[in-house]
Amino acid sequence: MASEQIPESNIDVQQCRLMAAAWMAHTGVKTRVVDKRNTKIFCGQADGLQCRSLEIFDSLGFADRAWKEANHMIEVGHIPVSRLKFMLKVSANVLPMIRSACGDRIPDTIVGLSRFQQIVLHQGRIERFFLENIKKYSKDTIKVERGVLPESLEIDESKVDDESSFPVTVKLRQLTEEEATPPQAANASKVPDGLFRSNLIQEDDEEDLINKSQARAGASEIVHAKYVIGCDGARSWTRRQLGFELDGEATDFIWGVMDIIPITDFPDIRMRCAIHSAENGSLMVIPRENRLVRLYIQLKEVTPDASGRADRSKITPDLIFGAAQKILSPYKIEYEYCDWWTAYQIGQRVGTSYDAHSRVFLAGDAVHTHSPKAGQGMNVSMQDTYNLGWKVALAAKGIVKRSILSTYQSERRRVAQDLIEFDHRFSRLFSGRPAKDVMDAEGVSMEVFKDAFLKGNLFASGLSVNYGPSNLVAKAGDALVEGDGSKDVRATSTEVSAETFAKKQALATGLPVGMRFNSFKVLNQACARPWHFQERLKADGRFRVVLFAGDILDPAQSERVEKFAAALDAPENFLRKATPPGAAIDSVIEVLTIHSSKRTDTELLRDFPDILHPFDPHVGWDYNKVFVDDESYHEAFGDAYNNYGVDKKRGCVVVVRPDQYVAWVGELEDFKDLQKYFEGCLVLGQHAPKAVNGTNRVNGVNAVNGVNGFNGHANGINGVHGKPLPIR
Amino acid sequence: MASEQIPESNIDVQQCRLMAAAWMAHTGVKTRVVDKRNTKIFCGQADGLQCRSLEIFDSLGFADRAWKEANHMIEVGHIPVSRLKFMLKVSANVLPMIRSACGDRIPDTIVGLSRFQQIVLHQGRIERFFLENIKKYSKDTIKVERGVLPESLEIDESKVDDESSFPVTVKLRQLTEEEATPPQAANASKVPDGLFRSNLIQEDDEEDLINKSQARAGASEIVHAKYVIGCDGARSWTRRQLGFELDGEATDFIWGVMDIIPITDFPDIRMRCAIHSAENGSLMVIPRENRLVRLYIQLKEVTPDASGRADRSKITPDLIFGAAQKILSPYKIEYEYCDWWTAYQIGQRVGTSYDAHSRVFLAGDAVHTHSPKAGQGMNVSMQDTYNLGWKVALAAKGIVKRSILSTYQSERRRVAQDLIEFDHRFSRLFSGRPAKDVMDAEGVSMEVFKDAFLKGNLFASGLSVNYGPSNLVAKAGDALVEGDGSKDVRATSTEVSAETFAKKQALATGLPVGMRFNSFKVLNQACARPWHFQERLKADGRFRVVLFAGDILDPAQSERVEKFAAALDAPENFLRKATPPGAAIDSVIEVLTIHSSKRTDTELLRDFPDILHPFDPHVGWDYNKVFVDDESYHEAFGDAYNNYGVDKKRGCVVVVRPDQYVAWVGELEDFKDLQKYFEGCLVLGQHAPKAVNGTNRVNGVNAVNGVNGFNGHANGINGVHGKPLPIR
Repeated sequence: MASEQIPESNIDVQQCRLMAAAWMAHTGVKTRVVDKRNTKIFCGQADGLQCRSLEIFDSLGFADRAWKEANHMIEVGHIPVSRLKFMLKVSANVLPMIRSACGDRIPDTIVGLSRFQQIVLHQGRIERFFLENIKKYSKDTIKVERGVLPESLEIDESKVDDESSFPVTVKLRQLTEEEATPPQAANASKVPDGLFRSNLIQEDDEEDLINKSQARAGASEIVHAKYVIGCDGARSWTRRQLGFELDGEATDFIWGVMDIIPITDFPDIRMRCAIHSAENGSLMVIPRENRLVRLYIQLKEVTPDASGRADRSKITPDLIFGAAQKILSPYKIEYEYCDWWTAYQIGQRVGTSYDAHSRVFLAGDAVHTHSPKAGQGMNVSMQDTYNLGWKVALAAKGIVKRSILSTYQSERRRVAQDLIEFDHRFSRLFSGRPAKDVMDAEGVSMEVFKDAFLKGNLFASGLSVNYGPSNLVAKAGDALVEGDGSKDVRATSTEVSAETFAKKQALATGLPVGMRFNSFKVLNQACARPWHFQERLKADGRFRVVLFAGDILDPAQSERVEKFAAALDAPENFLRKATPPGAAIDSVIEVLTIHSSKRTDTELLRDFPDILHPFDPHVGWDYNKVFVDDESYHEAFGDAYNNYGVDKKRGCVVVVRPDQYVAWVGELEDFKDLQKYFEGCLVLGQHAPKAVNGTNRVNGVNAVNGVNGFNGHANGINGVHGKPLPIR
Repeated sequence: MASEQIPESNIDVQQCRLMAAAWMAHTGVKTRVVDKRNTKIFCGQADGLQCRSLEIFDSLGFADRAWKEANHMIEVGHIPVSRLKFMLKVSANVLPMIRSACGDRIPDTIVGLSRFQQIVLHQGRIERFFLENIKKYSKDTIKVERGVLPESLEIDESKVDDESSFPVTVKLRQLTEEEATPPQAANASKVPDGLFRSNLIQEDDEEDLINKSQARAGASEIVHAKYVIGCDGARSWTRRQLGFELDGEATDFIWGVMDIIPITDFPDIRMRCAIHSAENGSLMVIPRENRLVRLYIQLKEVTPDASGRADRSKITPDLIFGAAQKILSPYKIEYEYCDWWTAYQIGQRVGTSYDAHSRVFLAGDAVHTHSPKAGQGMNVSMQDTYNLGWKVALAAKGIVKRSILSTYQSERRRVAQDLIEFDHRFSRLFSGRPAKDVMDAEGVSMEVFKDAFLKGNLFASGLSVNYGPSNLVAKAGDALVEGDGSKDVRATSTEVSAETFAKKQALATGLPVGMRFNSFKVLNQACARPWHFQERLKADGRFRVVLFAGDILDPAQSERVEKFAAALDAPENFLRKATPPGAAIDSVIEVLTIHSSKRTDTELLRDFPDILHPFDPHVGWDYNKVFVDDESYHEAFGDAYNNYGVDKKRGCVVVVRPDQYVAWVGELEDFKDLQKYFEGCLVLGQHAPKAVNGTNRVNGVNAVNGVNGFNGHANGINGVHGKPLPIR
């Protein structure tokens, strides 16, 4: 199966799929996850984790584990002026330019952008964190099924709009051990190329985390699913079943990658560093954990053939490393230990369509490929399924309207388009040619270059994503233009004029509608514990109404808050209507309050309406709903109101989607408009449909290049429909 | 076995023992850990974790796990002035006094004392963290053996001074299932009293973490050990075998403890809070994780009998909770869920001796008992074995001289004495009687009270511990007076006059010799990553020389650093002499550098002598030894030189023990004195003794009240002696 052609990048499959599975685990949706391969990835593959990916990991509960084990990317490489006489030979143009433009050294992550900075950790550990998290939250019910192949996929189009139906049918087959074992790549080296164990990385047995089928090899099974998600890589089987295409092309740029422990006198080996030599091509240094360093090395001696593809068999570690040594000269570099290596040709493609009938979805490399050097592949792919997972889960549970599922394509295909454009510029810059032009007299000025560099950094953080208007995002603008240009998700319930929207957005200038909810520290009113507010926006499938209550001790403001709380509490309004009978009031929508009075002057039980800290006869008052923007004893002041751009006296109201994106901003008096928002996306007052009986299981699989599979889920059994989320 | 008498506090056994086992795992010493019981503790038992305990957990690698799951203790309770008219009835004297003296609310942990603050987490989770950590670092070789009882303990006195001998013989017996199962306590309640699973706490199976013996019940085994550590509780079997006593007495104070989810209108239920009623006794509120609150409730209606002990059978949850309701009135409190409850009588005792021939040691409750309310029991007990474990491990490996083992008693028995004294004051204050006197006209002034309160807070943090002079702590003073008053550990190699010592201490005023090395943020020179410096002081058994290199760009200072480095590097000096042949230069003593020049003006490979970032032919230069006190991009400035009280130009040299205590301070020119320090405690140039053959296994067990066991270890097999520590 391993192609003799150098592959295009194809690096995200596991994480993309596991992110979808994590949502199902956290929301309690019955799911099956199948994978053609019978083994996991042990080393190499994927590098940087963006700020946004870490925020997402934190919403699931394991950012701390990645943060602890990873190498932290703090500074982008420089060449000190004292070494310039050597380096001029080495770095013909880009490095001195960066130095002049941005100063000697610059931070790798823009300061203040996120509570996390970019880190580097190998994919095997991230996979492990996902598997353990899925096991914990699904109470052992969701496990990856390895060695399972999908053989057919059918959608019954007559049923796609029936919310209680299982219109997708997938046939699965249990593979033999031989079929499921990925072939070793054809290369002469003894160094592993991605499928074998690393000596350096602590690895645990995954026996308890996956589901080894007891079925005999060859056994088939028919699965009826409500939804199927295909996260099966650049050669996606699912995509081919649906007849969708990847638009775009392979570039001529061929790169080698090596993970080594370098023995070198190159001074910046522990920083991210781009070396751009005049004659020998370019090299990028990515320091990693456990003394490892990843080198991305341009291979000028390898060129694509007439078909546009390059022959893999010509590429060896010696060839790659020889190129690196030339680029780094006069500095010396050697290694004894190589953890992993590979080579790839940069392809830049984006899928024509992301879903079929909002029942079968594609994500990750199945719908976009690009250069891995930008550190985007795994991140953007995980963010695809982070966007999709909760929508599918809540649709399956009957909490959101099925119509919102079309926002997946409008939001994420647009991101892929932007990514390809970014990658186009980025990979050409680092692959050499345009850089010279920048130095030309008529070229781009230093200021413009610096600006471009910083924009690239912002893009690479994952935090510049800004979703267009839809029934999920209440803002002004043209849904088609601000989306992917093909899926029309025009807002029916949240349409707003540019003028009106500007007034609403002005209430919270630090919380742009369509972007992720930024995080600043606030204190728990009851116990004074500081929290990054984003830590309270867990990935549990709940929408959140954040009430910036302002100065609660001001009688006029207190009256405004009382009125808002009374509307919230009214049986005819969205909060109670969204809550299934008998469920806790915060099971679908959680109301969180941040006020700006002095904490010690206020009392939770005295100063805040009950609905803001609801009482439960079994466990008493809820002490985890009300927060304050005040100084803490041990940590720096979060200054949340200023940072969110919210008026300290009057506050405002903000809706946050389950994936932490800002969805709506308004005054405390805009309750009618708020009600309209939830009417547009939620199923109100129609909860607890009957449990569905009959066959209803789930989902597919597949097979390309040994790194595939896909997941989906089924629902309806055991009354999962309409079941409230557990108390958190 | 369960006594019908109310027990004295006996809460630390597992953690104390596991801490010792963790040291053996981290230093690679062959060890057996045996426990009479066949089950673990699932809920209740123990509450607060001090700052110092968290620093210790971090040195082992799992503070983050505790920090994440625990409830954080931020603020000490207050009663707002607006409620005073109600509260006067409730809090007769102490609370208004605290409010007047300390302001309305005060932080629970003194601000700036540590990078951690006090937290609360149940013992079962902490035990789990230890077991997983021991499994990981011992590579599965150290597992707790449950259901194993020690039957005899003998010390061959003729061999105790022979470093290669195994002078301790222990006979172990495999228990039957019935013998190993702790009996259910005789009480009428269905609520668990500490031995049964909690519904609230996520628990994992521990099958993979313990060693279930395959031996048939009744089978005996003889173990020959170099060292045995008895962590077997207040009724220590080990202590009785040695014929040692606990000095002290039981008080008349009887307290009940309940872990409940409270349903209450008491405003401060999520803060640590002392309620001191005039007629109904006292109550302490300790908010915990998962909505739980622990209540310590004084039981005025239960009194000791003529023998000084109280009858347990009289005490029920209803009796305890009734007392709590009276104390809290007029506020109301109820509960539906009780996780655990118990009752105890406060005893205050300290062991007469902590070791026999420096071969068998006692730790934790086996040598001190006191009130659990001070949040000291588990913490001080773990700190006992944190002090002892590395000494025993390094003695077994032939790295330190056996003579330093006597510092265990001089250092830790003194802490126990201080603890009993503290507890005496603390528990009497909270048990009611002396408090009245403080309010008297001739009583202590508010200022004095506040001072006492803050001192108590400092003591409770675990950070006021200050070890006296010995061959491990180079300071002036009387070893007997500053130790426990009985073990004479007079320094032979580090004696210093008060005048000279004052001059040396002045070089690093923020690093008092004998106290733990405080932590401030510094940056890695090579990659700019910020680290709390304490994170670099891992519990791996290594001593550390911290070179404050000062302004390395100043030529005169650079010359001083070069000279110091040359001395370090000289074959006749301690660093190379302490290193076993063939081992890495940092395997016994690690040299870490913090300089004060601007990071971007300096280069690791150019500006720092090689010995400060040693080269290894297999993996290149070491990029993790040199740090800088400079501003970071994303985090607050650590200002380490100022905080450590070190001159930014000239720096100084500090020795840190494996347990993070400051051991020696001097000028860069004081190399001779530094050499003398290491000659006093280390075995220099006599490494790699022959591997010892023959029987050599380890250790004991035991049996009291179901919460016991003990551990020890043996050494010599497989050349563990003199084997270098692994590269970190």
